[in-house]
Amino acid sequence: MMQLYIVNKNYSTWSMRPWLVLQAFKLPFEEVMIPFAADPYTGEFKRRIQAVHDNAKVPVLQDGDLVIWDSLAICEYLAEQFPNHALWPQDRAQRAWARSICAEMHSSFSHLRSLCSMNIQADFSAHGAMLWQQHAELRAEVARIERIWASREQATQFLCGEFSIADAFFAPVVTRFKTFQLPVSVETQQYMDLVLQHPAMKKWVEAALQEATVVGMEQYRR
Amino acid sequence: MMQLYIVNKNYSTWSMRPWLVLQAFKLPFEEVMIPFAADPYTGEFKRRIQAVHDNAKVPVLQDGDLVIWDSLAICEYLAEQFPNHALWPQDRAQRAWARSICAEMHSSFSHLRSLCSMNIQADFSAHGAMLWQQHAELRAEVARIERIWASREQATQFLCGEFSIADAFFAPVVTRFKTFQLPVSVETQQYMDLVLQHPAMKKWVEAALQEATVVGMEQYRR
Repeated sequence: MMQLYIVNKNYSTWSMRPWLVLQAFKLPFEEVMIPFAADPYTGEFKRRIQAVHDNAKVPVLQDGDLVIWDSLAICEYLAEQFPNHALWPQDRAQRAWARSICAEMHSSFSHLRSLCSMNIQADFSAHGAMLWQQHAELRAEVARIERIWASREQATQFLCGEFSIADAFFAPVVTRFKTFQLPVSVETQQYMDLVLQHPAMKKWVEAALQEATVVGMEQYRR
Repeated sequence: MMQLYIVNKNYSTWSMRPWLVLQAFKLPFEEVMIPFAADPYTGEFKRRIQAVHDNAKVPVLQDGDLVIWDSLAICEYLAEQFPNHALWPQDRAQRAWARSICAEMHSSFSHLRSLCSMNIQADFSAHGAMLWQQHAELRAEVARIERIWASREQATQFLCGEFSIADAFFAPVVTRFKTFQLPVSVETQQYMDLVLQHPAMKKWVEAALQEATVVGMEQYRR
C-alpha cells in the first residue's frame, strides 16, 4: 500500500494537498505522521524525514520502490496511476486551466505564505486586519486568488465542477483566509464554505484541531 | 499554430523552460517576444502581457482558444498534446522522479533565485565568490542541486537519458552557475557542458547574447 509521509495537520499546507486528494478519491494509502517538535526543522523531525528522502521535506509518497516528493509531483503521479478517477478534470481545456492555477499556486503567493502561515486552530483576525492594512502585496495576491476562484463555471461548485486536485491545492488558502479573517467577497466565501464542507477537508480539520503540539510562529517561519 | 509569449532571453528563466522544450522537440510554435523596457514590471510590458492573460506574467502559451500560463503547466500540456515525443521520460519510475525534481525546482531554491539572477551576458564571478562565502543557504541549495544532478543514471547523459522537460527546468540553473562561477564539482560541470551544448540551448544563448536591453539588477529584482 502507498504511504504518505506528512507533518502536523494544523500547520502543514504542503502535506494537506496530496492527503486531501488521496482521501477525497478514496485511494488506498497509509498516513505516516512525523510530527514537528517545538523546533520544527531540526532534530528528530529532520532525522526521520531525511531517512525517507534526501530532500528532507514533507510530503513524500512511497509506492513500493518509488519515492515521490513534492506535492504537485505526487498529485500528477496519482492522476496517472488512477486514470479511472478524475483527479484532474476530464475535459482538456479544464485540465489545462487546472494545471495552470495549481502551478501558479506552487510557485507564487509568497506574501500570503509568509505573512499568513496556516494555523487551523487559531483565530488571528485582529492580526489579519493589521496585515491587510499594511501590505499591498498581500491584498494584490488575495485579489488574484479571488479572480481565479471567481472564474469557475458554477458558483455552487468546485473549481472544475467536481472536487479535483485544483481544489486540494487551494484548500490551505481557504483555511488561511478563515484564520486571518481576510475581507473577501461573498462569492469567495461561498467557495470557501464548499471546500470546508467537503468530507475529506472536514476530516483533516478535525484532526488538526485535536493536535496538541504548538509550534511558535517565529520558529515555524524559519 | 501555438504561440509562446516570452520576455528577454538574457533574463527570463521562466520563459526559457517551455521554449527549450518546444525547440528541442521541434514542436510547431511561434515565439512572441514582449521585451522588458528598462523598468521591467510596469508600463508597456505589463500592459501587453495583461492583454494576453490576467496573471500578467510570462510565459504564456496560446493554443487556439486555450491560454495556459506558468511554465510547468505549459510543459504538462505539451506532454499531453504530443504523446509520441518523450517530453517526460517514458519509464514510469523515471517520470515520477523527473516530475519530483521539476516540482521541487518550481517551488524552491529561493536563495539561488534571488541572489543569482539569470544574466547570460554577464560575468559575475567576483560577485559570485563573495555570495558563496556569505550565504550558507546558497551553498546548501547548490549542494542539493548537485545531488539531484549526480543521481542521474549516466554521467555522460541528460537527467533521464535523453533530453526531457527535467533538463529544461534546470537549464536556467546551469547558466546561473556559469555566470556566477559557483564552485561546483567536476561531475556537475560535465552536466552543465552537456546542457550548454544542446542545440536548443545554444540557440537560446546566442539570441540572449545579442539582446541590447540592459535591465538594472535592482529593478529586475523587484
